[in-house]
Amino acid sequence: MSAELLAQAGPATAVLSALRRSFDAAAAGLADVCSVGGRLDDRLLDDRQVAAFELAWASAELLAAETWVASLDAASADIDIRLALAFAVEAAASVLDRLAVVDDEAGTAAGDLYAIRDDARWIGLRRAAGSAAALEVAGRLVAASGGEVGGIALDEQHALAQAAFRRFAAEVVAPQAEAIHRRDLTVPEPLLRQMREMGVFGLSVPECHGGSAPDDRDDTTLTVVVTEALSEASLAAAGSLITRPEILTRALLAGGTEAQKADWLPRLAAGDPLCAIAITEPDYGSDVAALALRGTRVPGGWRLNGAKTWCTFAGKAGVLMVVTRTDPDRGLGHGGLSLLLVEKPSHDGHEFTCLQEGGGSLNGRAIPTIGYRGMHSFDLAFDDYFVPDANVIGGEAGLGKGFYYAMAGMVGGRMQTAARACGVMRAALRAAAGYGAVRKVFGRPLGDFQLTLAKLARMGARLGACRRLAYTVAGIVDEGDGRMAAAQVKLLACRSAEIVTREALQIHGGMGYAEESAVSRYFVDARVLSIFEGAEETLALKVIARGLLDRALPQAPCRADSGGTRDSGRDRRSVPSSPRRGLAP
Amino acid sequence: MSAELLAQAGPATAVLSALRRSFDAAAAGLADVCSVGGRLDDRLLDDRQVAAFELAWASAELLAAETWVASLDAASADIDIRLALAFAVEAAASVLDRLAVVDDEAGTAAGDLYAIRDDARWIGLRRAAGSAAALEVAGRLVAASGGEVGGIALDEQHALAQAAFRRFAAEVVAPQAEAIHRRDLTVPEPLLRQMREMGVFGLSVPECHGGSAPDDRDDTTLTVVVTEALSEASLAAAGSLITRPEILTRALLAGGTEAQKADWLPRLAAGDPLCAIAITEPDYGSDVAALALRGTRVPGGWRLNGAKTWCTFAGKAGVLMVVTRTDPDRGLGHGGLSLLLVEKPSHDGHEFTCLQEGGGSLNGRAIPTIGYRGMHSFDLAFDDYFVPDANVIGGEAGLGKGFYYAMAGMVGGRMQTAARACGVMRAALRAAAGYGAVRKVFGRPLGDFQLTLAKLARMGARLGACRRLAYTVAGIVDEGDGRMAAAQVKLLACRSAEIVTREALQIHGGMGYAEESAVSRYFVDARVLSIFEGAEETLALKVIARGLLDRALPQAPCRADSGGTRDSGRDRRSVPSSPRRGLAP
Repeated sequence: MSAELLAQAGPATAVLSALRRSFDAAAAGLADVCSVGGRLDDRLLDDRQVAAFELAWASAELLAAETWVASLDAASADIDIRLALAFAVEAAASVLDRLAVVDDEAGTAAGDLYAIRDDARWIGLRRAAGSAAALEVAGRLVAASGGEVGGIALDEQHALAQAAFRRFAAEVVAPQAEAIHRRDLTVPEPLLRQMREMGVFGLSVPECHGGSAPDDRDDTTLTVVVTEALSEASLAAAGSLITRPEILTRALLAGGTEAQKADWLPRLAAGDPLCAIAITEPDYGSDVAALALRGTRVPGGWRLNGAKTWCTFAGKAGVLMVVTRTDPDRGLGHGGLSLLLVEKPSHDGHEFTCLQEGGGSLNGRAIPTIGYRGMHSFDLAFDDYFVPDANVIGGEAGLGKGFYYAMAGMVGGRMQTAARACGVMRAALRAAAGYGAVRKVFGRPLGDFQLTLAKLARMGARLGACRRLAYTVAGIVDEGDGRMAAAQVKLLACRSAEIVTREALQIHGGMGYAEESAVSRYFVDARVLSIFEGAEETLALKVIARGLLDRALPQAPCRADSGGTRDSGRDRRSVPSSPRRGLAP
Repeated sequence: MSAELLAQAGPATAVLSALRRSFDAAAAGLADVCSVGGRLDDRLLDDRQVAAFELAWASAELLAAETWVASLDAASADIDIRLALAFAVEAAASVLDRLAVVDDEAGTAAGDLYAIRDDARWIGLRRAAGSAAALEVAGRLVAASGGEVGGIALDEQHALAQAAFRRFAAEVVAPQAEAIHRRDLTVPEPLLRQMREMGVFGLSVPECHGGSAPDDRDDTTLTVVVTEALSEASLAAAGSLITRPEILTRALLAGGTEAQKADWLPRLAAGDPLCAIAITEPDYGSDVAALALRGTRVPGGWRLNGAKTWCTFAGKAGVLMVVTRTDPDRGLGHGGLSLLLVEKPSHDGHEFTCLQEGGGSLNGRAIPTIGYRGMHSFDLAFDDYFVPDANVIGGEAGLGKGFYYAMAGMVGGRMQTAARACGVMRAALRAAAGYGAVRKVFGRPLGDFQLTLAKLARMGARLGACRRLAYTVAGIVDEGDGRMAAAQVKLLACRSAEIVTREALQIHGGMGYAEESAVSRYFVDARVLSIFEGAEETLALKVIARGLLDRALPQAPCRADSGGTRDSGRDRRSVPSSPRRGLAP
């Protein structure tokens, strides 16, 4: 059976390769019309946002399909072959549409796209892997899979961690998740204690500093494993707890003095204090260069004045990493920012006030949200709040480098966010499959109907593609690469979580809309994913599209020479691996 | 300017006409493979659910595009021409994809689809009306439109009603909406009193029975106008209040005795008592034929035993229309159901118990939901609850006809639900445009960026298409037709509301996720729309697709004779108006 299915991997690879060539040509064309004198021009980029957005999305979908299809071999399970090919069909159809937009905007010829669409291999693939009959079979496999999709093979250490954290998530976190969400509680101290004991907060801290990460390399796979497992039980009360220490740990590793590393890292690893990250300001969301919270030098340290917002876990945290403008010259943009470690008492509840002896104050107010409850996201107001010099990351030498230190954690943050999305999707998919098995409509189990099975298949294919990509990119990140791919998998997984939770809720019918059903929580929780850790639009335009177009630039001037462009275009991959083989390590 | 734009209406009409022919051929092909001996076969239909679902969706999108484009003329405003054509582009692309699925499943040739896709008029239309530049212009018009999209022209009476209810919604309802939602309050009595005074509950009741509807015909347009206006301020605390009295009123008009009409209609029109509709049961969602709540005949009336669920407003209501199985022979299906009017005291709050002197009881418990709060939807438990014979709609002659009486209100219910979706979309669109104007990112107003403008344009196009279709179908319903079209506009508008509110929230960024912003409420409220009043899947499969295939049947046997099928296929329209002209009256 596998062999027969696997035979479609060839046509799928051919279709994806052709799409990759069209993608490269479209990217080169768009880079051409967005550049002046061989350099990208901000105004021209702004004039092509629609096309750039489509390009970014096409890159993420194509990469996910390539990565999964490239991993298929004779040893692959039926479910993975079926879902990978089903995803390839969906992704290819979407990429075709998106590239048509880019071609229209860039003025590049869309002939290749027409050729792909009319190609017998594409038509055959659609019928073999995307037909209702194929989805019906795939849906049954998904329903029986327990969410094990994507063909993830972990080594023993990671498999043990996965098993341990899944058990903890199911037995300890899940039973508390509904109450924390519905009563908007703060993550309870006993739960945090157990997570401290399991080493949750030290996953990114090297062993030599008291954590569990290897001293000589990163272990992004482990953070992805743990984050996914915990997010399946609760996005906010468990799955998101690791993101903040990871960002702060990486900032300290990137810029901290030896004394700061020795002082902070073991405590962060122990989860004592807990930490939070304050970047966003009320008037500046994703526009980091414009941040305005001001640090003024005073004897022995700095006084902070200004506001931050959406600072998640700021109440419970004992230390906040605050991106602070320490150079008043706003023309410096990123270059005037530093990272200050603001210490404060830990507070439960939704509001707090910290008064310092010298007259400084810090006020926090939790912003009520439709989901992602438990950690609470705070508005913060700093009024002459004093921070000693010792708490400037990197000390005097770290002044003005805050943006770069903060960025050190962004790749990990995006990987974790992709993993969080995968965890929520897994939970939603399993809930939908479970409900379909027990709910009867028109005299049969809901999960027996073709439409339900097709929904489950598509949900499973989407989850599988995101998981496969997330775990693959995690390995690449550990090799020091994968910055672009981390943004791509964040983009894809977060929107996918919206789609999968929507469908899971729909399968539940009215029950899905009731707060008593977990799937209603998955739905509102999932909605935050495309907003935070780089809003979808910012990520797509400023990180992914900009990066893709930058890479496409050198080739752009000879765009008219289409054959040459396309061939050499293949080398300008958006991922650091060989073209036809996807990302398989 | 208009003339130049309007020139694209020709190509758009040509593209939609070609799609209509392909649609008819696909429907005929699917009907053929789903039928035995010229009749649709349930098992075969179940085996083709995926294709049927796509067919239903294609029918709704195509109808909406046809209807709007057919309405364009030299007097049309720029914004309507632009949005109608932009919607036609989106709808046509979607219909092409959906029909390809149907053709694959039905085994019909997809050659026509390829021809459309390659047609210069289609390519030209896409570039003229769907390009980033075109969307940018359209987006600016949408931002300035205040949500007035769809080219709706009302007569004086309806325009006055619209103005009055919009003012009431903005000045009275809107300021209370957030508190009602966030504190899960019951719609406050003073608000209900004002709505009573405005005649909200008598819109479907003929004047001769104390309402405001004409005695000789329906005025669906008026209910659509009022429902949309109120829903813009609050789906649950205002916009949905009319649905229940409409359904009960129509059931009484369809089956009630003269005494019942004379007794109940004036009181319902006055909103005293308020009413609720109890159809759904815990084990049976959209499967009405299987309903089990049992009525047992006793001297003078009936004793009810069993459960209902999702009975919205049951607490506040003084009378419930309860679909009851009065004939114990479950083999009768629909034929064993009757409508009983269950009187009870009105309760505020989330739980109630009604004890009768004879020992009967009725318990209600509000189901907490993520949105659509204010009316509360109740689980109901009937235990020997007594209902007098006088409260059986239609009396002895009405026994067994409950399903048909209930159905009399379903078309109106679906029209109102489409209007509710339009109201929520209008609110979300206006909020997004307003936020885009004031929020600055990267040094410019968010609403100035191309991507935001394109989003606004697409949202506006979708809302305009739904409004245009809803108002057009309302006129057809008043002429006694439009059952299928009412289902189609419900399907399209409800899913569109999910899409539009999702984008509106995204434009707000983090603020959109905060409960303090109205758009977060629009988002969670919109999610209920595809679930209630006929769940999306049930509506698409059992009402729309089934109806379409039934109509397509007579032609099905000569499917192989493709030329003939396609030509004559044009006559088997899914709407009761002339083929190429859409639904324009």
